Amino acid sequence: MNHFKSVKIAYIGGGSRGWAWGLMSDLILHGEGMEGQVSLYDIDRQAALNNQQIANNIPENPFRYTARDTIGEALEGADFVVISILPGTFDEMESDVHGPEAYGIYQPVGDTTGPGGIVRAVRTIPMFVEIAQAIEKYCPEAWVINYTNPMSMCVDTLYRTFPKIKAFGCCHEVFGTQKLLARSLLEMEGEPLPPREEIKVNVQGINHFTWIDQASFHGKDLFPIFQKFCEKYHETGYIDPTDQKHWANGEYKKKEMVKMDLFLRYGVIGAAGDRHLSEFCPGQWYLGSPENVARWGFGLTSVASRREGLQRRLEKSRRMLAGEPFELKQTGEEGVRQMRALLGLEDLVTNVNLPNIGQLPDLPLGCVVETNAVFTSNHVRPVCGGKIQPQVLALIQRTACNQISVVEGCLNRDLNRVFQAFSNDPLVTIPVAQARNLFDQMLAHNSKYHQFYI
Amino acid sequence: MNHFKSVKIAYIGGGSRGWAWGLMSDLILHGEGMEGQVSLYDIDRQAALNNQQIANNIPENPFRYTARDTIGEALEGADFVVISILPGTFDEMESDVHGPEAYGIYQPVGDTTGPGGIVRAVRTIPMFVEIAQAIEKYCPEAWVINYTNPMSMCVDTLYRTFPKIKAFGCCHEVFGTQKLLARSLLEMEGEPLPPREEIKVNVQGINHFTWIDQASFHGKDLFPIFQKFCEKYHETGYIDPTDQKHWANGEYKKKEMVKMDLFLRYGVIGAAGDRHLSEFCPGQWYLGSPENVARWGFGLTSVASRREGLQRRLEKSRRMLAGEPFELKQTGEEGVRQMRALLGLEDLVTNVNLPNIGQLPDLPLGCVVETNAVFTSNHVRPVCGGKIQPQVLALIQRTACNQISVVEGCLNRDLNRVFQAFSNDPLVTIPVAQARNLFDQMLAHNSKYHQFYI
Amino acid sequence: MNHFKSVKIAYIGGGSRGWAWGLMSDLILHGEGMEGQVSLYDIDRQAALNNQQIANNIPENPFRYTARDTIGEALEGADFVVISILPGTFDEMESDVHGPEAYGIYQPVGDTTGPGGIVRAVRTIPMFVEIAQAIEKYCPEAWVINYTNPMSMCVDTLYRTFPKIKAFGCCHEVFGTQKLLARSLLEMEGEPLPPREEIKVNVQGINHFTWIDQASFHGKDLFPIFQKFCEKYHETGYIDPTDQKHWANGEYKKKEMVKMDLFLRYGVIGAAGDRHLSEFCPGQWYLGSPENVARWGFGLTSVASRREGLQRRLEKSRRMLAGEPFELKQTGEEGVRQMRALLGLEDLVTNVNLPNIGQLPDLPLGCVVETNAVFTSNHVRPVCGGKIQPQVLALIQRTACNQISVVEGCLNRDLNRVFQAFSNDPLVTIPVAQARNLFDQMLAHNSKYHQFYI
Amino acid sequence: MNHFKSVKIAYIGGGSRGWAWGLMSDLILHGEGMEGQVSLYDIDRQAALNNQQIANNIPENPFRYTARDTIGEALEGADFVVISILPGTFDEMESDVHGPEAYGIYQPVGDTTGPGGIVRAVRTIPMFVEIAQAIEKYCPEAWVINYTNPMSMCVDTLYRTFPKIKAFGCCHEVFGTQKLLARSLLEMEGEPLPPREEIKVNVQGINHFTWIDQASFHGKDLFPIFQKFCEKYHETGYIDPTDQKHWANGEYKKKEMVKMDLFLRYGVIGAAGDRHLSEFCPGQWYLGSPENVARWGFGLTSVASRREGLQRRLEKSRRMLAGEPFELKQTGEEGVRQMRALLGLEDLVTNVNLPNIGQLPDLPLGCVVETNAVFTSNHVRPVCGGKIQPQVLALIQRTACNQISVVEGCLNRDLNRVFQAFSNDPLVTIPVAQARNLFDQMLAHNSKYHQFYI
Repeated sequence: MNHFKSVKIAYIGGGSRGWAWGLMSDLILHGEGMEGQVSLYDIDRQAALNNQQIANNIPENPFRYTARDTIGEALEGADFVVISILPGTFDEMESDVHGPEAYGIYQPVGDTTGPGGIVRAVRTIPMFVEIAQAIEKYCPEAWVINYTNPMSMCVDTLYRTFPKIKAFGCCHEVFGTQKLLARSLLEMEGEPLPPREEIKVNVQGINHFTWIDQASFHGKDLFPIFQKFCEKYHETGYIDPTDQKHWANGEYKKKEMVKMDLFLRYGVIGAAGDRHLSEFCPGQWYLGSPENVARWGFGLTSVASRREGLQRRLEKSRRMLAGEPFELKQTGEEGVRQMRALLGLEDLVTNVNLPNIGQLPDLPLGCVVETNAVFTSNHVRPVCGGKIQPQVLALIQRTACNQISVVEGCLNRDLNRVFQAFSNDPLVTIPVAQARNLFDQMLAHNSKYHQFYI
Repeated sequence: MNHFKSVKIAYIGGGSRGWAWGLMSDLILHGEGMEGQVSLYDIDRQAALNNQQIANNIPENPFRYTARDTIGEALEGADFVVISILPGTFDEMESDVHGPEAYGIYQPVGDTTGPGGIVRAVRTIPMFVEIAQAIEKYCPEAWVINYTNPMSMCVDTLYRTFPKIKAFGCCHEVFGTQKLLARSLLEMEGEPLPPREEIKVNVQGINHFTWIDQASFHGKDLFPIFQKFCEKYHETGYIDPTDQKHWANGEYKKKEMVKMDLFLRYGVIGAAGDRHLSEFCPGQWYLGSPENVARWGFGLTSVASRREGLQRRLEKSRRMLAGEPFELKQTGEEGVRQMRALLGLEDLVTNVNLPNIGQLPDLPLGCVVETNAVFTSNHVRPVCGGKIQPQVLALIQRTACNQISVVEGCLNRDLNRVFQAFSNDPLVTIPVAQARNLFDQMLAHNSKYHQFYI
Repeated sequence: MNHFKSVKIAYIGGGSRGWAWGLMSDLILHGEGMEGQVSLYDIDRQAALNNQQIANNIPENPFRYTARDTIGEALEGADFVVISILPGTFDEMESDVHGPEAYGIYQPVGDTTGPGGIVRAVRTIPMFVEIAQAIEKYCPEAWVINYTNPMSMCVDTLYRTFPKIKAFGCCHEVFGTQKLLARSLLEMEGEPLPPREEIKVNVQGINHFTWIDQASFHGKDLFPIFQKFCEKYHETGYIDPTDQKHWANGEYKKKEMVKMDLFLRYGVIGAAGDRHLSEFCPGQWYLGSPENVARWGFGLTSVASRREGLQRRLEKSRRMLAGEPFELKQTGEEGVRQMRALLGLEDLVTNVNLPNIGQLPDLPLGCVVETNAVFTSNHVRPVCGGKIQPQVLALIQRTACNQISVVEGCLNRDLNRVFQAFSNDPLVTIPVAQARNLFDQMLAHNSKYHQFYI
Repeated sequence: MNHFKSVKIAYIGGGSRGWAWGLMSDLILHGEGMEGQVSLYDIDRQAALNNQQIANNIPENPFRYTARDTIGEALEGADFVVISILPGTFDEMESDVHGPEAYGIYQPVGDTTGPGGIVRAVRTIPMFVEIAQAIEKYCPEAWVINYTNPMSMCVDTLYRTFPKIKAFGCCHEVFGTQKLLARSLLEMEGEPLPPREEIKVNVQGINHFTWIDQASFHGKDLFPIFQKFCEKYHETGYIDPTDQKHWANGEYKKKEMVKMDLFLRYGVIGAAGDRHLSEFCPGQWYLGSPENVARWGFGLTSVASRREGLQRRLEKSRRMLAGEPFELKQTGEEGVRQMRALLGLEDLVTNVNLPNIGQLPDLPLGCVVETNAVFTSNHVRPVCGGKIQPQVLALIQRTACNQISVVEGCLNRDLNRVFQAFSNDPLVTIPVAQARNLFDQMLAHNSKYHQFYI
């Protein structure tokens, strides 16, 4: 068995702690065969220093962590780059998510699509241009793993800025749908709950609006079982009794009613949380008012609750700096397994976001799409996702087109082009003049990120 | 100069008179080099007989008209087939156009897209299946000219039923935009008004949502001129002082405000009447309420006014049968010129609806699209329309996808598939459950056309 | 760990023993988790009965073997179908391989492309039409594994006859190239010889003319190493000292000189034996005369030696029927691992032949191509192979086009279309009139398979 | 009727007189509605001055001719640019055409494809890079008409260097096939000979290997007539009794036997002279030896005869400079009609060479292809050529791929890439090592054009 002794990982962002701590855990629990160093870079330098101290305090950590002063120092010679930044602050996120409510537009997440996702992209794309340029300069051969939203537009920006980049985007939303399929097997057939990895699915779509058109477990087709499951639960909703997050906070609750409604209508499974799926559908379907959202059994995540989450993590950080031991936890993320696979230590097939080279022939070449991919010894190759259900394709195309316009508009400093996409967003169910007002207000809240556009 | 002495034309439909009389006129005024016979077939046999009498009463008519009892007799041996039917009656049209108003959905035309256009397609597609089968049986080599709406879906049905059919769809909406460009030249540059045929345009899109991305007159680029024109008139609207139809009836009025708004936002020209263009845009943009429609300077054509129009034509028919002479009029249509071109008597480049064989590489192959085409000696070949403005493409794709689903849904007797398109229509800005109610009600009004689906 | 107790496998062909015995071995050695029955069907019924007896004599065989009288009985209820037929007899193969020599056309294999491969296809395609129809009738849900050549055209025929078939074609030629890459690591870097499965490659092309544009071992790029290897050995050739087959028979010898020459010219690796690669290149490159073949270090496999091989197998069959124990051997084939993966017992990524659904965007959709694919729980999904080196693509396209014409020509009973491909074959470097003579002679030798074409 | 009084035409090249005098004639005979100035630029400055004098001596010439010292002066402000250069001298052409004969490779023209065409491209592409850069600098809005061979690669170079160039390539080879179709009507049906413009054809392919899949005259399908014509004449050949060129010089003779053979085999018509068509087919079909060429009834044009032709034109030039009156002649070329159409003075549909934007969906996007196009008021739009006969496509693809490699190889200074195409050329029926020798020798004869590649 091979052993890689000097793996170099650069971690960009992570000052908001959650993802960085997850990586620390995963590298220890699942990083067999790898040791080396992790360079931390965050515009909040103190946050990076704190993470450095927390990580290096963990006994028998096979990686040495170092906070770096510049992105260049962090990237220099990296084998892997992990990007997990918060673009801007919660103040801008407040504007993204809650600004549109004055116009009757409610967004359960607001970081991927909809007015919030589009304006977040306007703010984030210039940052990704800089990151891609730095990668080209300091570590052009590194594998780059992006976790930042809006995922598709971030990955697209990386490739348009540095076309030879070896980047992909990771997202765990599909995993949740695999878990739901596993539960449907238990609920409808009384079979023991299988691990989600053994639920084999074909994945097609764009990030957070990914679809499953084929699912099986040990050769058994799961679609007829999920059909019965939906027929039973689509009106009441279904709550996974083991899902902690659901009970912890009403804003994250989910009864899978959107997913079941879409399945009964289209015959394919929306493979993301209902909060995400609803944002890609015409605005009046599942959103439109807090009452309608409640009727569909999911919550609107407020930025206030995100601020609280951060406070909890900051307190925890202080406790750990004061000596509380770091707790190793399974995150369920696959970043570390992906790194091992790229080093040739295992093989892995999982869903990722990559430019379309033919894996989804219904969508434009070059467009960033989500499908399964094979990870193996320095290769990542998308698996062919095949044809998409025609009317689901119609829903996907609308946002895929909009996202291309947002990225091209930003890169060409053409905000009118961005507005063309904004006014065609499924959630922007208001007259054009009002949409323009909203767009201008939201951009005004992001003025400090605007030098890029002038 | 060649002369064709026994041209056989089959005219399907036309009982509602307007288009049939137009063809009679055009054949006399513009049919140089052609003579022969016209077979009339209409499910209203008396209407066909009346038209036979009216036509044969015209002195020196180079064509002999005969009403036929069956579609087979009409088609047998035809060189050209003209299809211009009214699918169903004004009662169904009443349901198509005004039914959705109870849900806040206002349609200025309702025969192409929107709830009205989709349900009209459900009614019409079985008729076009029958017509295509009859053409395959009786005159497989004939050229088939369709005027019936919903144009794209009718032409698509012809090709899917009989793939070797030589059919195309004709529409004069682009001509109106050429006239507007001619007027902008007069208004902004003081140049004499050119004939619309000399305004050369590139055409791309789908019927009634066609776009012009290049226009010139004698080598002069008309886009900067139209830009100034729109900047001057976009708030007040522009009324062509020579347009009779506008003044005759408020329901047909048009101030071109939608067209100018779209041009200022997208930089390309919507080449159809505002009443049509508005139906393809998100519902809240130009429609949504009678007040909003009024603000954008166009009218909602009621079925009542269509009934009145028919009454006027019936009275005229009675007068002509009683001896009033038939009045020859320029229709501005190009059907007769197309026939002459197909016989090799002239060459012609004009816009038509044909399955996509590559003329619009952004839209799916096979999808019925509208571009220019070259008509010449037994050939019709589309002209490459090129790339479409990306966000205009996003608007077009949405309805193009929906139309494919409607046709495939109808041909496969899968009304759920049709509803998938219906619920994604830009005008259907209501929750899915309400949309389903509306759909079911509208279908119930068409129950007599339903045997096809059972 | 799951266990499947009643797996049903239908084996079509196999009377010539080699492949059938291999499957028996592999099912015992690698079929963990599977037991059940194998139905044998061969037009040589005695051969099937012999194989039944040989298999059932093996102690502790988890599968029960039964020779069946009809293909329908063999297929009924099958989970897996293995097709491994010899189309026709060695007499027709004699004509395929050696007939063209009178025209100066030498073929080292003659079963895939070239005059021999094309005429073999003419003989084989009608058989595959029948097999596909039987599968549709008796076991439409079965997974179908084809080993018969001409591979691409056989698989294409299966899909064109029964489009919903779940078939793929397997070939081990890529494995040999993985082994050569492993040896280059040993030879040039002194590293221990890795197992071929750990040499990770990207595969693109058509069967027997497959190419590798990316290869690595534990994250290490193997192309610079193979470059040095080729520079060292391209003039002398390289013989794998462990390769038994090479020494056994001069007709199978291989010095990899074609592969190295192609790599030095194109920068990508031809992933099949030199005997195959040479048949896809312009005829004068590596073939053209026995002397030229000798110069490039490989052999022309005569049909005489194939006849001898069969005699050896028949004798061995007699000995085993008389009691000689069956010897379990590693075949290196992956058929049984593929079955296990399709049952959900393991995951597997390997190269297979499938219709192009976008995995190779440079080749026509629908064309049967060879790339990697993911095998997992009732799914086989091709992995995107990406862009092909442009001039290698030019070489591939030529035969890919020809193969489409041969299949369409045969299915439409249009032998002129087949001859169009024949005369454009890279090996047919003779005037058209001579090519027609050769074609007609070769077809005459196959007259008993011709009823299909009349 | 409009009149353009200051049309500016830049003529690049033309020192070898034939094409330049043709343009002078055509501008006078067919340039109705146009007057202005023609700027002449040739690296042989005296030739340009001579042409200036000859043109300005023509009485009532509506254009004023001026020889310019630099290409920039010639292009400045041009409305139209005509490119008609001789790349290099007859010495290099001697090497192109006759060099390969030592290897048994005979080329009847050697300026488009084959070893001669490829090496000519190596010499010409750098010149076209310079011309495109000058056009971008001095007259980016001008329409550019190229007559220089190798046509496809020249036009491709223009677009790759200056992507917004408004360029197209013109060739009259299709006209000859229209004439042959007209003659078949006369010969087989006894009809009066129609003018070639009234033979309407669909055109698809690449320059000099263009194909007609549909032809008609006044609505009558010409294919059955041409079929009978070929059946009658394919063995003896057919000589147009009115064709002067044929009799003038055996090296240009043509009996249409290649064209008829291809038609009988493929069912579509090769729309170029046999001398050109034969160069795109596998080398042993129609070439291979002077005897085979003679058998197929066409000639090998020697460079010696081209030198003689130039001498005749030089003498004629001297006589005209000395006062012999300029003789106006119909050239049959359409350059001047194209200019008139682009000015909006007429409409024109004719065949031209343009990058593929979808007009030929079987060939790669961007690849320079030949189809019909509509010329009208500042637009040139290709007409959709449709699907190509599959095995004809296979023949076309081979050279289309090679030409892309030659252009990309030259622009990237990668002569190995050019050799990859060279060794795959249909006429290069020799082993690779010999092909490399030939390639190197031919390049050595072009060393003075090589600075570009170092």
